[in-house]
Amino acid sequence: MLWSDARCRVILVDDPDYTGFCRVIWQQHVKEMTDLSEAERAHFMAVVFTVEQALRESMHPDKINLASLGNQVPHLHWHVIPRFADDAHFPDPIWATRKRDPRPIRMDKIRLAEQLKRRLGELRQMKTNR
Amino acid sequence: MLWSDARCRVILVDDPDYTGFCRVIWQQHVKEMTDLSEAERAHFMAVVFTVEQALRESMHPDKINLASLGNQVPHLHWHVIPRFADDAHFPDPIWATRKRDPRPIRMDKIRLAEQLKRRLGELRQMKTNR
Repeated sequence: MLWSDARCRVILVDDPDYTGFCRVIWQQHVKEMTDLSEAERAHFMAVVFTVEQALRESMHPDKINLASLGNQVPHLHWHVIPRFADDAHFPDPIWATRKRDPRPIRMDKIRLAEQLKRRLGELRQMKTNR
Repeated sequence: MLWSDARCRVILVDDPDYTGFCRVIWQQHVKEMTDLSEAERAHFMAVVFTVEQALRESMHPDKINLASLGNQVPHLHWHVIPRFADDAHFPDPIWATRKRDPRPIRMDKIRLAEQLKRRLGELRQMKTNR
């Protein structure tokens, strides 16, 4: 777990192929984005985009992939996946057939968690100031 | 093309396996969501969620899948995919190995386009009233 508040939490997914893969999970059991209120949706997406920003700053990926699928587990969550041109499936989605063994990527989890905390703190600050 | 404004357009994807599959495409060439301003992002997501709502109302899918990948074409777009328990890949993502031939699904494209236009019109109305 990297971060959480009353409405959602951010976890680092333990995927050997995808260092930095994060999941943002809504705390309450809700199935679709359009089941949330407009304010809840805005909060959820702000957290997702903050995770994207922190991953871009710390890992400089070639692309960010965002997805909310939940066919197996219909509990709202977003995948935030840093993609690299030499990763296991690029340029295909990570759910397609594996193409290659990726080079190992080092990432400082503690630094990422700190960066997220700082950025999400700013987000809360901005909201409070409005 | 189902709908468009100065910032984005909604198209119906011609995928024989996925009736109702829509794509929301940002008009300007931008790579990541966090390259947009907060207002642009909010507008884009409001259109995506309106498409989700219209698809839920007209097709009653078992799940909605949302994804912004763009590894092949780094031009911001969102996939909005109505999923059914007996579709070609369920419960896997549509990019995984095909599992079965789905039953054909009928959809009234003109009605969907009208519904989208009405709902996106309401969205614009709401914004103007604020």
